[in-house]
Amino acid sequence: MATTPILDDEALSPEARAVFDDIRATRKTDFVNNFWRTLAHDPALLAATWNRLKEIMGPGALDPLTKELIYIAVSVANGCSYCVHSHTAAAKAKGMTEAQHAELLAVIGMAAQTNALVTALQTPVDEAFQIG
Amino acid sequence: MATTPILDDEALSPEARAVFDDIRATRKTDFVNNFWRTLAHDPALLAATWNRLKEIMGPGALDPLTKELIYIAVSVANGCSYCVHSHTAAAKAKGMTEAQHAELLAVIGMAAQTNALVTALQTPVDEAFQIG
Amino acid sequence: MATTPILDDEALSPEARAVFDDIRATRKTDFVNNFWRTLAHDPALLAATWNRLKEIMGPGALDPLTKELIYIAVSVANGCSYCVHSHTAAAKAKGMTEAQHAELLAVIGMAAQTNALVTALQTPVDEAFQIG
Amino acid sequence: MATTPILDDEALSPEARAVFDDIRATRKTDFVNNFWRTLAHDPALLAATWNRLKEIMGPGALDPLTKELIYIAVSVANGCSYCVHSHTAAAKAKGMTEAQHAELLAVIGMAAQTNALVTALQTPVDEAFQIG
Amino acid sequence: MATTPILDDEALSPEARAVFDDIRATRKTDFVNNFWRTLAHDPALLAATWNRLKEIMGPGALDPLTKELIYIAVSVANGCSYCVHSHTAAAKAKGMTEAQHAELLAVIGMAAQTNALVTALQTPVDEAFQIG
Amino acid sequence: MATTPILDDEALSPEARAVFDDIRATRKTDFVNNFWRTLAHDPALLAATWNRLKEIMGPGALDPLTKELIYIAVSVANGCSYCVHSHTAAAKAKGMTEAQHAELLAVIGMAAQTNALVTALQTPVDEAFQIG
Repeated sequence: MATTPILDDEALSPEARAVFDDIRATRKTDFVNNFWRTLAHDPALLAATWNRLKEIMGPGALDPLTKELIYIAVSVANGCSYCVHSHTAAAKAKGMTEAQHAELLAVIGMAAQTNALVTALQTPVDEAFQIG
Repeated sequence: MATTPILDDEALSPEARAVFDDIRATRKTDFVNNFWRTLAHDPALLAATWNRLKEIMGPGALDPLTKELIYIAVSVANGCSYCVHSHTAAAKAKGMTEAQHAELLAVIGMAAQTNALVTALQTPVDEAFQIG
Repeated sequence: MATTPILDDEALSPEARAVFDDIRATRKTDFVNNFWRTLAHDPALLAATWNRLKEIMGPGALDPLTKELIYIAVSVANGCSYCVHSHTAAAKAKGMTEAQHAELLAVIGMAAQTNALVTALQTPVDEAFQIG
Repeated sequence: MATTPILDDEALSPEARAVFDDIRATRKTDFVNNFWRTLAHDPALLAATWNRLKEIMGPGALDPLTKELIYIAVSVANGCSYCVHSHTAAAKAKGMTEAQHAELLAVIGMAAQTNALVTALQTPVDEAFQIG
Repeated sequence: MATTPILDDEALSPEARAVFDDIRATRKTDFVNNFWRTLAHDPALLAATWNRLKEIMGPGALDPLTKELIYIAVSVANGCSYCVHSHTAAAKAKGMTEAQHAELLAVIGMAAQTNALVTALQTPVDEAFQIG
Repeated sequence: MATTPILDDEALSPEARAVFDDIRATRKTDFVNNFWRTLAHDPALLAATWNRLKEIMGPGALDPLTKELIYIAVSVANGCSYCVHSHTAAAKAKGMTEAQHAELLAVIGMAAQTNALVTALQTPVDEAFQIG
């Protein structure tokens, strides 16, 4: 169904296996989801993607749950079904409550609506917003 | 430049003026940005949009700054230039630090990248993500 | 500013000039907008695009104004600023009233909102919708 | 499969049930499609979405069928599979003929094509389109 | 599952059959994929789409495989699942190697990421890029 | 105009300056375009983005010009004006001819059109495309 093979653990190259080991250690679970399995045929892309994701999604100026909410928002706007599923699951695992999920949906819907209105109106950017 | 007139205060209908009064009272500023001015020719749409926005973007299970970050994320993914400008300004006004802005950008960029990879790979949704 | 030259009438090849002549005759105006001028460096693409557009946008099972409204809707969703400007102008020229414009905006905004909600919810298609 | 439970009638809260009652009365059918069932866990969002949709999609300056065609156009451009299915079904129920459907497809395809060409060409907006 | 019937060969009108005959002759295979079968209810749109596709995707200043890679890139960015499947299959049939596929994915992912960053940053176009 | 400052050389941190030095050395030009200048406030994101871009866009299984064409295609579909300008300039610098540019535009337009048609038709993926 995917455009590349979905590799199970036995089919991994040593370089891909090392990435899977790090995914498992970082996430403290044996489960490795299909995104990584469809990327695994290209160990260089797999490693670059995982290493960058791990760095970006960890704690920092924004907490990990907030980052998942942002990730979901982008994934919805880009219409990526897999990504909505996987990051909604990740957000729940990081403690997203039903009330937070409901508000996330409301904000995403509102933003989509006003984005469309602004584009239809071709509203010019206010001078006040142009001062860095 | 817009596809509808950008109404200044003198040109407002009484219904639109009432919405502008509420925008000013709610935001504690006399400034009303162009989005509302290009919507103001249609007081019903203006009122419906403002009333809903006010309700959604206030404090709740998610704090107002987090909601602005989500709004920016959707606006970026939808390519709405005006919206990116106005909600980045709003996020700064609500206390977004430079470090938070930088992390927001990194998460948005990462999400856009993995969204595209997943779509190119046509990765099937894992069973584990399908349990509500 | 464009990625190809914006050709004025003197710079047209004979093949491009013939297309411009037909645009002018069909639209009963001397004005030829920039879209065609930026396409004119490639007379084959210019001719193919114009001929198809002329055929599709004429009267048929849907009237020309309805077709312009649909064109605006797609252009908004695709975030094409030029297209929103040019097709809103075209719709006005074909008789779109302010009230119709306002309702068009409301429908576009509503559709963008529910599109986003459905994608965030990953709502499965009802069986009732799957019967051709 | 959805990211929220798909509620059947027995699982509805009283507030959600009231919205479902209005959907059934307005549409004169007992069938309530999955979109509303996946929204129903959040009665406030359910009610706000339904009430606004009912108001916007009713008769006005544009007839209900034209509004459905516009809705389909936005849904296609946003790549929302569920929405294309549900609004195509709604348009057929409101009388969309095969010939109208065929022309709708042709216009949507044409708009997508010229949107892409304009974006690739970065065609500047004509002065003639900038006069309100 | 489609919004129009998926016509098998027996159900084709003579005009649609002529297009199918040309598809088979051009591609040197009896297989006609579902895209054409769902378009076939409208022979005019079917013929216009096929004739234009055949002309554009043939050899020219760009070779057919490069054109397929470009087609995949657009299809991914537009989130068209069917199109990603069909054009990835077409690219493989035209000789795309695994290494080329892997690089295509990396470029698409990178472009999606920097597109999003630029939009979030609202980077102004350099003067150097504005000289046609 | 950007949402972050556009840093000139004097304002760079040492880490950002090192990246700019590498951009200049790699591209054999003193010119550093605004994308990097708006990213430069966050040296970590700047370095990660540049290092990855340099690696991906170099020669490999696909030649650098083909990669630029793919980059333009994604940028068009994502509606990123800056990116279309900068990568069209880059493609010209790498030898893209006018005829190649014209064919690129035709393919992008065709793909956008059939993407939209497929989404409107909800064409199901052929079994033949599902064999990895």
